[in-house]
Amino acid sequence: MGLDKTPNSFVDGEVPLSDDETELVRRRQGVMAPTYRLMYQRPLTIVSGEGLWLTDKFGNRYLDFYNNVASLGHCHPHVVAATVAQTKRLASNTRYLHEGTIETTEALLSHFPDDLDRVIYTCTGSEANDLSLRFAFKITGGTGVIVSDYAYHGTSALTASVSPNLGPMVPLAAGVRRVPAPYGDEQGQADRFRDHVLEAIGDLERHGITLAALIIDSLLTSDGVFPGRPGFLQPAITAVRQRGGMVIADEVQAGFARTGSHYWGFERHGIAPDFVTLGKPMGNGYPVAAVVTKERLLAEFAGDLRYFNTFGGNTVATAVAKAVMEVIEDEALQENAVDVGRYFLDALEDVATRRPALQSVRGQGLYLGADIVDPGTGVPSKRHTTSIVNGLRDRGILISICGPNQNVLKIRPPLISRKSDVDQFIAALDDLI
Amino acid sequence: MGLDKTPNSFVDGEVPLSDDETELVRRRQGVMAPTYRLMYQRPLTIVSGEGLWLTDKFGNRYLDFYNNVASLGHCHPHVVAATVAQTKRLASNTRYLHEGTIETTEALLSHFPDDLDRVIYTCTGSEANDLSLRFAFKITGGTGVIVSDYAYHGTSALTASVSPNLGPMVPLAAGVRRVPAPYGDEQGQADRFRDHVLEAIGDLERHGITLAALIIDSLLTSDGVFPGRPGFLQPAITAVRQRGGMVIADEVQAGFARTGSHYWGFERHGIAPDFVTLGKPMGNGYPVAAVVTKERLLAEFAGDLRYFNTFGGNTVATAVAKAVMEVIEDEALQENAVDVGRYFLDALEDVATRRPALQSVRGQGLYLGADIVDPGTGVPSKRHTTSIVNGLRDRGILISICGPNQNVLKIRPPLISRKSDVDQFIAALDDLI
Repeated sequence: MGLDKTPNSFVDGEVPLSDDETELVRRRQGVMAPTYRLMYQRPLTIVSGEGLWLTDKFGNRYLDFYNNVASLGHCHPHVVAATVAQTKRLASNTRYLHEGTIETTEALLSHFPDDLDRVIYTCTGSEANDLSLRFAFKITGGTGVIVSDYAYHGTSALTASVSPNLGPMVPLAAGVRRVPAPYGDEQGQADRFRDHVLEAIGDLERHGITLAALIIDSLLTSDGVFPGRPGFLQPAITAVRQRGGMVIADEVQAGFARTGSHYWGFERHGIAPDFVTLGKPMGNGYPVAAVVTKERLLAEFAGDLRYFNTFGGNTVATAVAKAVMEVIEDEALQENAVDVGRYFLDALEDVATRRPALQSVRGQGLYLGADIVDPGTGVPSKRHTTSIVNGLRDRGILISICGPNQNVLKIRPPLISRKSDVDQFIAALDDLI
Repeated sequence: MGLDKTPNSFVDGEVPLSDDETELVRRRQGVMAPTYRLMYQRPLTIVSGEGLWLTDKFGNRYLDFYNNVASLGHCHPHVVAATVAQTKRLASNTRYLHEGTIETTEALLSHFPDDLDRVIYTCTGSEANDLSLRFAFKITGGTGVIVSDYAYHGTSALTASVSPNLGPMVPLAAGVRRVPAPYGDEQGQADRFRDHVLEAIGDLERHGITLAALIIDSLLTSDGVFPGRPGFLQPAITAVRQRGGMVIADEVQAGFARTGSHYWGFERHGIAPDFVTLGKPMGNGYPVAAVVTKERLLAEFAGDLRYFNTFGGNTVATAVAKAVMEVIEDEALQENAVDVGRYFLDALEDVATRRPALQSVRGQGLYLGADIVDPGTGVPSKRHTTSIVNGLRDRGILISICGPNQNVLKIRPPLISRKSDVDQFIAALDDLI
């Protein structure tokens, strides 16, 4: 994927920068690898964050509607307090008994169905997906992996090899098969998706590759945000199981109440995954991630397969994760995601009725997407999308872009967002578009 | 690798525990995956740490001579202060310009030769090695990887596949070839090691596999701590380069002044790696790691190969890493590692002259190892080693075990250790042995 193909990224020389910004860009390019990207045509120099707001070094404030890491708002006081207290007390690993780590793990599992009963901590969602795939390979003896067309599951060698989103220069593994996201009409969505999965399984079999797993983000966010009809994943999941495959629910995007209707995205479909992978919002900015799985799946070879992650599940990480779950409950953020998410979706749909550039509004809780098309031709337009996202940035509102045609507005307001924040966004969008 | 084969791990029922400990073990086993291990025959319930000392919930204190994560001592005030300040201000990612991140990266590179001029942040050493291997594969077009006999380079699918240390149940990749650690006589070590590497390259070629990289921990710690003669890696490195391979220096163990003589272990050998991977001590407990590499290696395909790690190089991680480097310099810890390391090695050698169970004392800076043998037969003894390490634990001193025969004392005192701390360790060891 060429530099110009990275959605919404700074390209040197494209827009004029202040001397100060130019110097920072030069210094950064002089020490950080050329694989790095900056967001927006004019990069942001953020120095602090509080709640929904980021502040740059020039004192400008930005409404951060792109943040599913600081999902409780930047520097949430309860999470900061937990981080500070535990950092001062002990940062150590999972090879000692630690009541705090056990308590966090118990609290985490209380949000899962009974048979998802064991946790393994990692530091990143990539590590969680990598490990789940390794387990699935081990359990099934296969290497066949089914992913959505434009899925992204991580940056390790293995997870990158199941992430078509990374583009043609990062080859997919031989055992990877892609299925289309549930585009278009919701009628028949479940059957269509199952049929695609069955076709992929058939093709794997035809190549003598044993099915290991279907790995899926239940909101299909990288594909362009396609929550689909609740339950549409069910028939496909049944088919995967019948053919001996494992199911990995990648909850790095949808997890921790983002969908509003449920704590985890997979619950919206009434499915029972074998592995659930957690990441981004789990520490509200602190690096912590996890795999949630079933004792009975691991028991057989757990004696043979140690897993130790030096920082994974360390005493600070687990204290932070506990604080995050407490805030979601104490501030009723799951309920807020339903309420404000519905309000947001309605408001976006209202804009769409008036503005032909905005099409196919969709969303679930506080994860929203909409297509941007050329208002003249109706064709998906990367140029218009880029212009809108950067226009919003210049008006102090941050969102970004996703989807294979880079024409989908990717909107992820923190779970603490209120209707008045949505109003501010909608007014700016309506004006720009 | 069977459960009993994990060095120095708790086996349920082996030793009696208090009711309190038993309950914690039960609770932990009920929620954490069976792939987890606890250290020591009787696990520790650590609640706090300060400097060299850990305290358990019963008020017992332990001298932590096993810690190359909290390498500056637990909860070092300067590092805690940096963590707290930045956690309160902003925890965000590398897609914004951030002066602090740039400053840390400049400071980090000031410790490297000029041509190692670019940094990519990750969260774990595993991620750093995984990414370096991916780059090496991409650059060379090969998949051949040379590792030491009992190397450990990480827990991702790719890094586990180049880590013979994980045992026979974690298969090595088809392109992996192993070379013996520099056991025995230091005379001729460099030539022997080069010859083994050449043999491995020859075998790869015979199988039609293109050499991608040699990846090496310059202290060969997992193999049983074999620092070897300074420079012994040089001829092997030259051979790898001549055959088109890349060199990855895994500094997760040896880096950040641990060796005393140098800031990085590879410098002791006067070699110039293509990739240097950093981890454990980089954040003194905060999850931060990195790849240091060369702009010219990445320039060609950097446009094609994005790399983004959500938490990698976040504003807190880089603030912490900067604080760690400041402490190493301000407290002259590299010099301390030379001084106390030499003192420690002499003291261990002195014990060895008097105690036939202790053999082949070796070390570099504050990373030390020694073989434990049956004093009657002179045969490597896992049983004696386990007994010594657990005996030390019962006397309030923590070290652990490594090496293929699980008979090597693995001693990693924090860099702040003083000679009086070493005296305490030596007295306990001498008494026990």
